[in-house]
Amino acid sequence: MNFLRKVPLPRTSNVFSRPVFRSFSSGIDASKMTTTLTTQTKERIPKEDLKFGQSFSDHMLEIDWEMKDGWGAPRIVPYGNMSISPAASVFHYALECFEGMKAYKDADNNIRMFRPDKNMQRLNSSASRLSLPAVDEDQFLECIKKLLVVDKSWIPEGQGYSLYIRPTLISTHPYIGVAAAQNARLFVICSPVGPYYPGGFAPVKLLADPANTRAWPGGTGDTKIGGNYAMGIGPGQDAIKKGYAQCLWLFGDDLQVTEVGTMNQFWFWKNKETGRPELVTAPLDGTILPGVTRDSILKLCRSFGEFDVTERQYTLHEVMDACTEGRMIEAFGAGTAAIVAPVNGFTYLGQDFNVPLDSDDPSAMAGKLTMRMADTIQGIQYGEIPHEWSVVVPEN
Amino acid sequence: MNFLRKVPLPRTSNVFSRPVFRSFSSGIDASKMTTTLTTQTKERIPKEDLKFGQSFSDHMLEIDWEMKDGWGAPRIVPYGNMSISPAASVFHYALECFEGMKAYKDADNNIRMFRPDKNMQRLNSSASRLSLPAVDEDQFLECIKKLLVVDKSWIPEGQGYSLYIRPTLISTHPYIGVAAAQNARLFVICSPVGPYYPGGFAPVKLLADPANTRAWPGGTGDTKIGGNYAMGIGPGQDAIKKGYAQCLWLFGDDLQVTEVGTMNQFWFWKNKETGRPELVTAPLDGTILPGVTRDSILKLCRSFGEFDVTERQYTLHEVMDACTEGRMIEAFGAGTAAIVAPVNGFTYLGQDFNVPLDSDDPSAMAGKLTMRMADTIQGIQYGEIPHEWSVVVPEN
Repeated sequence: MNFLRKVPLPRTSNVFSRPVFRSFSSGIDASKMTTTLTTQTKERIPKEDLKFGQSFSDHMLEIDWEMKDGWGAPRIVPYGNMSISPAASVFHYALECFEGMKAYKDADNNIRMFRPDKNMQRLNSSASRLSLPAVDEDQFLECIKKLLVVDKSWIPEGQGYSLYIRPTLISTHPYIGVAAAQNARLFVICSPVGPYYPGGFAPVKLLADPANTRAWPGGTGDTKIGGNYAMGIGPGQDAIKKGYAQCLWLFGDDLQVTEVGTMNQFWFWKNKETGRPELVTAPLDGTILPGVTRDSILKLCRSFGEFDVTERQYTLHEVMDACTEGRMIEAFGAGTAAIVAPVNGFTYLGQDFNVPLDSDDPSAMAGKLTMRMADTIQGIQYGEIPHEWSVVVPEN
Repeated sequence: MNFLRKVPLPRTSNVFSRPVFRSFSSGIDASKMTTTLTTQTKERIPKEDLKFGQSFSDHMLEIDWEMKDGWGAPRIVPYGNMSISPAASVFHYALECFEGMKAYKDADNNIRMFRPDKNMQRLNSSASRLSLPAVDEDQFLECIKKLLVVDKSWIPEGQGYSLYIRPTLISTHPYIGVAAAQNARLFVICSPVGPYYPGGFAPVKLLADPANTRAWPGGTGDTKIGGNYAMGIGPGQDAIKKGYAQCLWLFGDDLQVTEVGTMNQFWFWKNKETGRPELVTAPLDGTILPGVTRDSILKLCRSFGEFDVTERQYTLHEVMDACTEGRMIEAFGAGTAAIVAPVNGFTYLGQDFNVPLDSDDPSAMAGKLTMRMADTIQGIQYGEIPHEWSVVVPEN
């Protein structure tokens, strides 16, 4: 039997190459869209009081799918509750995946999106992992753009303000056998949001958590599915109770660092061997969410050509060593909600480690690279820095 | 830093000892139950045509919870769709857990349940892992019993027939931040089901899957939460396409066997060292669902005192060796739906392994121990074998 032994689990990312299940029946057709406008616009929260994800715009987008006939006509309807069978497998087996995107209003009153094609691709990767139907990426994006035009007045103006867009795909199949969905609903809701850091950057401390594992080889960590988030809520709460902002997720006995909270994690340090500054993040090895912000930071930093940029598996021991040996320059999480979230320290098994913000400016609340990333990406998002990543939504 | 290195992830089951979050506000109070009977009973499917989980009884149970006031009054209402916010975090972050139980009609027309206290305990363990509210176990069970009395006519009569009961707890909190739920709904739906093997046992072949991993230390494999099931549906479909009934789940480079499909897995073999017959299953180490059927089989077999009964981590290599060395006696999966599911072979990396059914009877469709377990547990469930595990539901 020896030839059968020791087959290591595959640990490669296939998130953008995984074959997706394509229905042989109707695809999504944006031209079939129907629109039912609300008769009573909701009360608007003053933009200074907006809180992430708690209030929603006037309308939502819904597209139903069923195995035999494929996707139905997209419909924009007033935001409101959905009527769903208690047997729908979304409630039982977490057949659900989602995306997080934003719409921005630029200085010329255009609606802009940021790399929306990446979200469409990832949605299909997630759907495929759950045997949920594939989405016609261009057509679905077209439908989202129509929703944004209808709810344009809900996109708050100003730097840092945006309309958070939440595409969600759920199984509505009323069957409690553990099986692939034969009915599904794709819907999009929108939540007006203010700057992640209304008073300027607020660096956070992390709790490195050896007890809970976010994702593993042969699992689902490289997809944006509900089950990846459920497991982190309890440990995240515990971290907050202990005075930390987030969990720093670890993997394996050698304490590989994977992600932070619901973000990708970056460290900017002087490499122990080369002595050169290096930006490090975990690779897309199947356990890491392929973040759009992560990808944007890597591409921007590589285009700078000023320091090394490395995607590789690395351990908390390396991070701790960089801190104690004075090689750590700065660190941040990266995601759609915050763009970048500066980190000024972490604790592991009761031992505290400080991470510098800006060694030249004791009053700085974020490191130089962290701020540069925030400024550059935000500049692109609001159309102030011309870039192919920013897409203007046509309004007629 | 050396003292910080190599802290192995904990791999211990805490499923029945995990502290549960208890609301300081109202608990579930069965005496506050309201009942709204349907005005139009559903069409009944002839019991020979019943399929698992596709048709449901006339009524359902709903109990709403919110952070401040705790649990509301339980209500029995006609079975029907639920109206839920599209922002409810059950749709986004899989904040959902469930149980699987059955009600049986005995020869005296009593309603019986099987070890329902175990399901109530496990529901709280799952809820706790997701920071969902704890359920008052006795009171919730009381509510379920009232539902069974209302829908007694939906419990099909006869050996192997039952009413499958699906308690489900979901977050209804309309907030798309990744956070603990502040609103939740506990509901119960019931599906009349026939024998798992209407034509007698049908042994199955398994596909040992080295590519997908069901659960991981520091994960959620010991709870009955939606996210544990979503990941297995695609691989399960692939197995079926290749001619297998289920995936045999493996863990780690040494190919530890964990579960099969959505069941616990048992092997009955002659132990390599002792030569004695031994029933082996994976231990409750945090990656294994603590099945009620699993626990019942272990307790019954230990009470027999006829062979060794072992819960330990074991590898596929041991299983393959037992097959090729003629030591394998029989094997089965175990769960609420099937009680036991006989296995007559598996394939690993293209190599087929046969598992005997009954070496004394070439026409047998299940092994002697498999059949004995089915007969004994079913006998207890229908009240034919007097046992404390079978609970008669009072009807007035």
